[in-house]
Amino acid sequence: MKYEKLEPAAIDENLAGLSGWTLAADRLSMSKSFKFRNFVEAFGFMAEAALAAEKFNHHPEWFNVYSRVDVKLTTHDAGGLTDHDIKLAKAMEKAAARRAD
Amino acid sequence: MKYEKLEPAAIDENLAGLSGWTLAADRLSMSKSFKFRNFVEAFGFMAEAALAAEKFNHHPEWFNVYSRVDVKLTTHDAGGLTDHDIKLAKAMEKAAARRAD
Repeated sequence: MKYEKLEPAAIDENLAGLSGWTLAADRLSMSKSFKFRNFVEAFGFMAEAALAAEKFNHHPEWFNVYSRVDVKLTTHDAGGLTDHDIKLAKAMEKAAARRAD
Repeated sequence: MKYEKLEPAAIDENLAGLSGWTLAADRLSMSKSFKFRNFVEAFGFMAEAALAAEKFNHHPEWFNVYSRVDVKLTTHDAGGLTDHDIKLAKAMEKAAARRAD
């Protein structure tokens, strides 16, 4: 599968279709801090996101402390954001929505 | 269960019995960077550690990128290291050892 960097307009368009993701100042990565009710829900989200990541062969950088999961997505091979990041972000949105208050 | 801060001597003794953990300069937390062969093994370790953390009701701060998991342990309620951190560290050692090369 190709890893072509998204054009600036495509990045903006994709992010507009997602909720709560922040584009880094250098536009090379996107981040979101997910909040859950407790550790079980946070790790449940991580487990579901991990399965998607492994299936897509595209993995996040993420930090977890108790009910919070901070995610950063980028495509190292392409040196920036690609469709793989958008795909993984969408999978994470779905996983998070299942655990929403 | 009590959350009493470990005495300095007890911290040193416990860390001597573990492998690869670094005490923070302020002696309030301990850290280790775990390395695995790939994401599946890294996340397998995290899943096993998460079950232990939830069982102990004591959770890590951790960061993962692909095959690496950086862990930081401290007991916020006690303002430093307690037996709970040592217990979780030992569980993590076991989980990591099962996935060693």
